[in-house]
Amino acid sequence: MAQATAPWQLSKKAYHAGVKALRKDLVQMQVQLKASPFKVLLILAGPEGAGRGDLLNTLAGWLDPRGVETFSFHEPTEEERERPLMWRYWRSLPACGRIGVYAGSWYTETLRAEARGKGALTQLAHEAARIRHFEKVLADSGTLLVKLWLQVSKTAQGRRLRALHADPLTAWRVTDEDWQHHQAYARLAKKAGRILAETDRPGAAWTIIDAEDERARDLVVGRLLLGRFRRHRLAQLRLAAPARIRAGAKTAARPLRPAGLRRLQALPLDQELSTEAYEAKREKWLGRLNRAVRATLAAQRSLVFVFEGWDAAGKGGAIRRLTSAIDPRYYSVIPVAKPTDEERQFHYLWRFWRQVPRDGRVAIFDRSWYGRVLVERLEGFCRADEWKRAYREINDFEQQLVEHGAIVLKYWLHVSHDEQLQRFREREGIIYKRHKINAEDWRNRAKRPAYEVAVGDMLALTDTAEAPWHLIPANNKRFARLEVLRSACRQIEEALEG
Amino acid sequence: MAQATAPWQLSKKAYHAGVKALRKDLVQMQVQLKASPFKVLLILAGPEGAGRGDLLNTLAGWLDPRGVETFSFHEPTEEERERPLMWRYWRSLPACGRIGVYAGSWYTETLRAEARGKGALTQLAHEAARIRHFEKVLADSGTLLVKLWLQVSKTAQGRRLRALHADPLTAWRVTDEDWQHHQAYARLAKKAGRILAETDRPGAAWTIIDAEDERARDLVVGRLLLGRFRRHRLAQLRLAAPARIRAGAKTAARPLRPAGLRRLQALPLDQELSTEAYEAKREKWLGRLNRAVRATLAAQRSLVFVFEGWDAAGKGGAIRRLTSAIDPRYYSVIPVAKPTDEERQFHYLWRFWRQVPRDGRVAIFDRSWYGRVLVERLEGFCRADEWKRAYREINDFEQQLVEHGAIVLKYWLHVSHDEQLQRFREREGIIYKRHKINAEDWRNRAKRPAYEVAVGDMLALTDTAEAPWHLIPANNKRFARLEVLRSACRQIEEALEG
Repeated sequence: MAQATAPWQLSKKAYHAGVKALRKDLVQMQVQLKASPFKVLLILAGPEGAGRGDLLNTLAGWLDPRGVETFSFHEPTEEERERPLMWRYWRSLPACGRIGVYAGSWYTETLRAEARGKGALTQLAHEAARIRHFEKVLADSGTLLVKLWLQVSKTAQGRRLRALHADPLTAWRVTDEDWQHHQAYARLAKKAGRILAETDRPGAAWTIIDAEDERARDLVVGRLLLGRFRRHRLAQLRLAAPARIRAGAKTAARPLRPAGLRRLQALPLDQELSTEAYEAKREKWLGRLNRAVRATLAAQRSLVFVFEGWDAAGKGGAIRRLTSAIDPRYYSVIPVAKPTDEERQFHYLWRFWRQVPRDGRVAIFDRSWYGRVLVERLEGFCRADEWKRAYREINDFEQQLVEHGAIVLKYWLHVSHDEQLQRFREREGIIYKRHKINAEDWRNRAKRPAYEVAVGDMLALTDTAEAPWHLIPANNKRFARLEVLRSACRQIEEALEG
Repeated sequence: MAQATAPWQLSKKAYHAGVKALRKDLVQMQVQLKASPFKVLLILAGPEGAGRGDLLNTLAGWLDPRGVETFSFHEPTEEERERPLMWRYWRSLPACGRIGVYAGSWYTETLRAEARGKGALTQLAHEAARIRHFEKVLADSGTLLVKLWLQVSKTAQGRRLRALHADPLTAWRVTDEDWQHHQAYARLAKKAGRILAETDRPGAAWTIIDAEDERARDLVVGRLLLGRFRRHRLAQLRLAAPARIRAGAKTAARPLRPAGLRRLQALPLDQELSTEAYEAKREKWLGRLNRAVRATLAAQRSLVFVFEGWDAAGKGGAIRRLTSAIDPRYYSVIPVAKPTDEERQFHYLWRFWRQVPRDGRVAIFDRSWYGRVLVERLEGFCRADEWKRAYREINDFEQQLVEHGAIVLKYWLHVSHDEQLQRFREREGIIYKRHKINAEDWRNRAKRPAYEVAVGDMLALTDTAEAPWHLIPANNKRFARLEVLRSACRQIEEALEG
C-alpha cells in the first residue's frame, strides 16, 4: 500500500496556487482520456469525517462534469438482489474515456458489515476474493483503478463530526452510526486494514491518503489522480502497439490443451434415429423438461442456456425445440452478434452481465461470451494475453451465476465438415434459408482446423463442475435435439436435488 | 377495428401448404426489416384459451429468433414502481430492424384490473389515455404496431381450458383465475371491448382475430403481419424521401409562436451584484435549497433538473453551485451529447426515459430532450412534422414524471450575443478552458437569430404548469447562479406544500 501525504500543512495561498495549476492539468487529462481506449475508476473509502463527501464536491468542481459519473450504493434493489452480487457494479461501469467516481463502491457493504461485526470471517474472505477478481478483470482490460483510503486520526474525526453536527446545514450528515463508529475507531481501523490488505493487488493497489488537513488532502488526491493517469496512458499506448498484436496472432491456432481437441475429434457423429422413435421420445422429454423448468422457476432460480456450435449445426432448431417446453412468458432468446459501438466501450463480459436473467427467468444465448475464445481469438480481435485470460474470467463469471442459484447449461453442437458442406448447399437452395449463409460463413468454414483447436481448448478449459459442457453430436438433427432435451433434463433435475 | 378471419376451417394439408409459402415470406420480411429504419411491435391480447401462448410458439418457430424479442410483463419490480408507469415499457422496446412480440403488454395490467372489477372508470380512462399517447408516439416515429385481439366463443374457451387441464403437461397453465374468467365470459368481453374501442386509433388499430380454429388463427396472423409490414415499409420509404426532408427544413427558422421570442428578447440581462452580496445570499439560498432537497428525497420523490442555454452561458457553473447543496450520493449529472449508434435505433425520448431517476434521487440534465426542438430542428436532423410534434410529446413526458411525483425544474440560461462573444474569446485564452470552444460553437453562434426563434417557440409551447421554464438572465454569472438557487428553492417548496 502506498502512502501519499503533503509534506506540510498547506497555507490557503499555496493551496490556491496549487489548485490553479492542477485544474488546468486535470481538464487536459480529461481531454486526453476522452480519446483513450480505457476508463478511470476513482474509489474513495475511509471512515466518517475523513471528508469523502467534501473531496467529492471538490473534485466535482475541478473536473468537467460531462466526463464524470458519480456512484454510491445503498441497499440493493429487488432487481439487484435477484442477480449475482456483482451485477449492480457491472451495470454501473462508465464507458471508455470517462471517469467513474465511487463515493460508495463494492467495498461499502463489506466494510459496513465488518463495522457492525456481522461479517463472518469466511464471508469476508469470500467477498474479498470476489472484489479482487472483479478488479483484476477491470485492470487486465486496461481500466485505471485509483483506490484511495482517506485516513484521519480519532481526534480529527471527533473534531469534524462535532463541527458538522454543530452546523444546522450539515447536522443531518452525522448519524448515530457515525458516533458509534467514532467510539470504535481503533477496532474499525484494524478491520478496515485487513480488508485493504486483502484487496491490495497490482493494478488495484490502495493508496492511503492523509486526510487531516483538508486542503492538502484534496490537492494530494488531485495530483495523484493526474500522475496515475499519465503513467497509465503511456503504458496503455505501448500495450496497444501493432507489433504486440501481430505477435499474439501467431499463437492463436496452436492448442493450449490438446486433450480438448482429442475429445472433440473422438465424438461419434452419425447416430441413427427414426422419425417415429424421435417423435415418441421427444414428447416424453419435452414433458419432463417442462416440469423440471417449472420447478426451477418456482424455486426462484434462473436458467442460463448457452448454445455454441458450427455454422449450420442446428442451434436455431435445437433452441426452438427447447423453448417449446417453456412458457414463453419466462424465457428470452438472446442472439449474440458483433458488439455494438456502445458495447465496444466496455469489457467483453459487460454486455452479457447486462443480460443476466432475474431469479425465476430463463435466458437462452444463441452464441455467447465464448466468442472471446473462438472468433475473437482466431480473427485477431483481441491480443493473445486477452483471450488466454478469458478462460478464467469466463469460469469465474459462470461460477458467480451458479453461486447465486442459476443453473448454467452449455451446449456445443458438433457436425462434421462434410455434413456442414451439405447443409450450406441445401440452405442456398431454399429461398427462405438463403439469408442464413453468407460469404463469412464460407470463410469460417475454410478455417475449420484452427476453429477446432479453439473449440478444443474451450472444452478443456471451461468444462467446470458448476457449468459443464454438453458435447452434442449433431450430424443427425433429430438426435441432437433429443440430446439437448435429455441432458438439460438431467442437469436441471440433478441441480434441483443437489 | 378490423376483423381478420379465415373463410373456412383449414385442413391440415392446406395449412401446411400455406405455412410453407408464408415462412419463406416471413423470413424475407425479416431480412428487409433488418435494413429498415423502424421496428415492429406485435401485441397479442385476448382471453384465456384463445391461444396466445400457442400462437407465440408458432411464430417463434416461423421467425428467425435472432431478430425477435418476446416480452411479457408481470408484477412491476421495485425499480419499475419507483418510476412512472410507462418506464417499464419504454425500456423494453426493441431496436430498429427488430420485432418485439408482446405476449403481455401495457394492456395486461389494465385488462386484469378490469377483469377483477378493480378498475374505477376514471382510472380506466386515464390508463387508456396513457396507452393511446404511448402508441401514438411510437406510431408517429415510424413504428409498425400490429395489435391483435384473439377472439374465441365461450364454448371454445371452455373446451380449450378443459383440454389443457386434462393433459398433465399443460394442466399447470390453467389457473383458478382462468376458470373465474370463463364464468364471467360475457362481462369480460364487454369490458375488453371498451378498452379496445378506447385504444383503437390510426397507426395503432386493433384487429380482431377469429381464434376458433387454431391453424387458421396462426396462418391468418402470419399473413396479416406480412401484409402490414409490406404496406408499412412502402409508406416509410415514401416518408423518408429527400424532397420531403428538404421541404421541411425551410420552415425551421420561422416562429410558431412569436410570443415566446418576444419574451426571450425582452429579458433584462445586465443585473448588478457585488461579490460580497452574492456570497452572503448564496450561503443563505444553498442552505435553504439543501433543506428543500432533503425534504423532497425523504418524501421519496425525485427531482429532475434540466439545464439549457446558449454555449458559454454558464450551465456548468450553475450546475456546480447547485450540486454543492446536494449530498453527492443522491444526484447524478447527465451530460447530453449527440446520440450514440445504439440510441439512434430508438425514439429520441428513449434515451431520456432510460435516465429517469428513481424515487428519492436527483437527475441533472446538462442539455436534454429539448435538443429535438433546438439543434435537431435547426440542423435538419429531423423532419418538420417530427419537431413540430415534439412539443406535445415532451409536455406529455414531463407530465408523466410529475404525475409520478417528480419535481421538474427547467432553466434557460440567457446571455446576450456580445457577452457570449467575450466569453468565447476568454475561453480561448485560458488553456484549461480552451477545449470548451470548438468550430461548431462558432458555427452555432452565427445562427443565433434562428436559434432565438427556436428557443422562443420552446418557451411558448413547453412552459407548463407542471414543469415551468425559468428564464435566467446570465450576463452576470453570479446573478444567474443565485437565480437558479432561488427559483429552485421556491419551486420545490411550493411543490412540497401543494
